[in-house]
Amino acid sequence: MARITLRIDLEGHGSIGPGKIRLLELVGERGSIQKAAGAMGMSYAHAWKLVQDTSATFGAPLVDASAGGIRGGGTTLTALGRKVVALYRTAEKRAATAAEKEVNLLRNSARGRGSVQRSIKPKQKARG
Amino acid sequence: MARITLRIDLEGHGSIGPGKIRLLELVGERGSIQKAAGAMGMSYAHAWKLVQDTSATFGAPLVDASAGGIRGGGTTLTALGRKVVALYRTAEKRAATAAEKEVNLLRNSARGRGSVQRSIKPKQKARG
Repeated sequence: MARITLRIDLEGHGSIGPGKIRLLELVGERGSIQKAAGAMGMSYAHAWKLVQDTSATFGAPLVDASAGGIRGGGTTLTALGRKVVALYRTAEKRAATAAEKEVNLLRNSARGRGSVQRSIKPKQKARG
Repeated sequence: MARITLRIDLEGHGSIGPGKIRLLELVGERGSIQKAAGAMGMSYAHAWKLVQDTSATFGAPLVDASAGGIRGGGTTLTALGRKVVALYRTAEKRAATAAEKEVNLLRNSARGRGSVQRSIKPKQKARG
């Protein structure tokens, strides 16, 4: 399925896109920046920096590592972190619905090149 | 102004996003891959590869360099090239309109951190 992803530029405060949002979601799901980084195939240091950059964009923490306790771990999303993820995913869904017609036309143009379609529909010689 | 940009993934045929589309637009406007590359601060070789990759996605040329003649230059967009650019820009406009509410809420969250807004609206002590 063709799909769209959004990058949202926030007036000089930075931007959010699919990578940062997926990372935040994974932190929420797995309770750990380390595990989220691993799931995305990135280093902990890179993931940590992305989380810090995104928190800086919104001027407040998007994750809370204070739940660690003596066993460590236990990073959760803050209310702001959950809000940012939810708004982004809603924006993405609405955008995909609104742009569906054009995306399908572009996909069909890209499909048109396929060898499968060409072998199914060989050029006909003009009659007569 | 907060703004969104789209990346459209075309089912294994590749993807198109703001960079490739802007490059195609500039080729159309300036009549030259060399000039379009310069306007985007990229090398001719990189621009040429992006154009080739995008043509491969759609299985047909998006630019036509055959208009060069003895003076050289004179690269234009093909009908397919103009169609791809137009569909992408329409998709982008529709997506921006559909996601406007969420983008504004995200922008306001990002703005909320600003020192200007804080200095204009200091916290009030609760009365009584």
